[in-house]
Amino acid sequence: MFSVTVRDHMMIAHSFRGEVFGPAQRLHGATFVVDATFRRPDLDADNIVVDIGRAAQELNAVLGQLTYRNLDDDPAFAGINTSTEALARVIADRLVERIEAGALGDGARGLTGIAVTLHESHIAWASYERAL
Amino acid sequence: MFSVTVRDHMMIAHSFRGEVFGPAQRLHGATFVVDATFRRPDLDADNIVVDIGRAAQELNAVLGQLTYRNLDDDPAFAGINTSTEALARVIADRLVERIEAGALGDGARGLTGIAVTLHESHIAWASYERAL
Amino acid sequence: MFSVTVRDHMMIAHSFRGEVFGPAQRLHGATFVVDATFRRPDLDADNIVVDIGRAAQELNAVLGQLTYRNLDDDPAFAGINTSTEALARVIADRLVERIEAGALGDGARGLTGIAVTLHESHIAWASYERAL
Amino acid sequence: MFSVTVRDHMMIAHSFRGEVFGPAQRLHGATFVVDATFRRPDLDADNIVVDIGRAAQELNAVLGQLTYRNLDDDPAFAGINTSTEALARVIADRLVERIEAGALGDGARGLTGIAVTLHESHIAWASYERAL
Amino acid sequence: MFSVTVRDHMMIAHSFRGEVFGPAQRLHGATFVVDATFRRPDLDADNIVVDIGRAAQELNAVLGQLTYRNLDDDPAFAGINTSTEALARVIADRLVERIEAGALGDGARGLTGIAVTLHESHIAWASYERAL
Amino acid sequence: MFSVTVRDHMMIAHSFRGEVFGPAQRLHGATFVVDATFRRPDLDADNIVVDIGRAAQELNAVLGQLTYRNLDDDPAFAGINTSTEALARVIADRLVERIEAGALGDGARGLTGIAVTLHESHIAWASYERAL
Repeated sequence: MFSVTVRDHMMIAHSFRGEVFGPAQRLHGATFVVDATFRRPDLDADNIVVDIGRAAQELNAVLGQLTYRNLDDDPAFAGINTSTEALARVIADRLVERIEAGALGDGARGLTGIAVTLHESHIAWASYERAL
Repeated sequence: MFSVTVRDHMMIAHSFRGEVFGPAQRLHGATFVVDATFRRPDLDADNIVVDIGRAAQELNAVLGQLTYRNLDDDPAFAGINTSTEALARVIADRLVERIEAGALGDGARGLTGIAVTLHESHIAWASYERAL
Repeated sequence: MFSVTVRDHMMIAHSFRGEVFGPAQRLHGATFVVDATFRRPDLDADNIVVDIGRAAQELNAVLGQLTYRNLDDDPAFAGINTSTEALARVIADRLVERIEAGALGDGARGLTGIAVTLHESHIAWASYERAL
Repeated sequence: MFSVTVRDHMMIAHSFRGEVFGPAQRLHGATFVVDATFRRPDLDADNIVVDIGRAAQELNAVLGQLTYRNLDDDPAFAGINTSTEALARVIADRLVERIEAGALGDGARGLTGIAVTLHESHIAWASYERAL
Repeated sequence: MFSVTVRDHMMIAHSFRGEVFGPAQRLHGATFVVDATFRRPDLDADNIVVDIGRAAQELNAVLGQLTYRNLDDDPAFAGINTSTEALARVIADRLVERIEAGALGDGARGLTGIAVTLHESHIAWASYERAL
Repeated sequence: MFSVTVRDHMMIAHSFRGEVFGPAQRLHGATFVVDATFRRPDLDADNIVVDIGRAAQELNAVLGQLTYRNLDDDPAFAGINTSTEALARVIADRLVERIEAGALGDGARGLTGIAVTLHESHIAWASYERAL
């Protein structure tokens, strides 16, 4: 199995609802350093997993919808906690939509899996992975 | 599949028995930077994998039993080599005991897997992963 | 010259005023991984720069006044941009106040300089350093 | 499942063929920081996955065949793109050959999997994993 | 004293002349992860050291003249070894030219120093710093 | 001013005397990831600060006297606390002795400063710097 990973980041504000979150129930923020991993069992005709330039560009586009914003104001997240792990799924799912729409090229149709990791600090991170 | 990881560390002395260990047969030591990963297929009612604060607290408690000690003097390790990989299993198993005892809350009963990685230097690390 | 550095972090929301900030004029947030460095020309009687446990504790206390908050609501920052570099100075100055108040012990009175670095992402950070 | 990882690096020149590579079609180069991971379900009689010293030595030997060279001149890569993901496979396969030849000792015959990750920069890396 | 640092990278081929370089006399390559640090004693009217967006843009432009190339073919480096430390100076000097030409804005005229660090691997890096 | 840094590590056991050290008064251990920085105002005839291969070799030799040992048993440290900052000085001074003895070559006689940083964990490190 092969994989390629690209890294980017976003800087957002948000708050959580639920006692489990303690002081994080207050409006605060985070830098999420985001790693998007693309997997496939075999390489394409160019001997690659995916066009890494386009992969980075699409990840940047997905993060561009979220960064420099207060996620509490985003209708997409109404009524749900934008935890690190939940955001990892959002980003993975949005990348999959783009792959399926052809944004990463025809070669990317050979991808079989994706994983997204969000690092919220030097001591905590979360991931979501799914099949394509 | 979702996962959340928390990082902490411990600083221990120990020695190894067996020619394969070369100079590490002498009493020496290590800082282990420890990453504990908690996995589950779906998020809980708070939209999280686990209460990250409690996860960090339990990891710290498990490491507190080991840090600032000479592991050669710990009866739990009598007659066995406390290699990085073996210690990863010890820490993972002790975390599982705590999860099963309810230390991470009822939500944590949805966890299906755990992985522990110990970084012994910038050029070597070891992991152990198991199901819950 | 000797130095000791301890690392901690904070997660805050804020916004900037001024065209130079572009989309960062919107309410957003950041994780700041914070490195506090303590300097002195000679070691103390215990052969250390500073009690590293107390240094970590005081840094954590200073960050505790800021983390999990919207800095736009903090009267201390009314009318000023809480840029990464400006926050580095705030944290350094607050650490110096604590050192001068004796929070790091008598030995810490031998400190001659302090530097604080805030990492806002994997590709940007800012520092402030001053004498004591 | 247990694993042990060792890190080393190589510095090579190469070029790519195919429009997808854009400016990387020109002769350029890369430092690849290489992580080789060895997996097995149980530890050996010494309580380890593999002799970490020999693992590091064999990884270094495999990289020694590639480093400080222009890969475009290496007959082993004639007519193929030496992408990061393709090189990960080359290194993994060469490590497997050595393991099977006994270079990591008899204990290493218990290894069941290997993974190789090549970091080409702070924002991109690729991996290949296979069974033994 | 304040500073702001931005990180980017370049991927180049080159070779060295001189016995001291050993196998690096052969054509090989490197990824240089490049940190550019901008210093000044006081913040500007926006409470910043420099417009970090423009700083990142100018660093990217300077690296764009070098990346994905064989430096042995660049007339600017005819007859000299493009060592990591020498390239750090080249990049710093080119950034200073841009600052002096106004590329970072009028505020950047308050900058008093610059430092450039090139990481050639996880175990080696080099820096050059100068006044403005 | 130019600098070149090389990284290596050592794994030692030790204990501290003095109430300030709390649980670190017990025999424990540490991995120290060690960065040795060599400075000079101008490059030598090869356009470098120092022969990086020899610098790495000498650092490795200095660390070889300490690694895989219990520093409490080393007569060189009798009666003193082998704190991270104190060990940074020991390593720096031993490197200077080697430089002055010619171990880094004649070119290295142009070095004007050295700095040594010991990382004891992901959240703490210490440095010592001196002139040559």
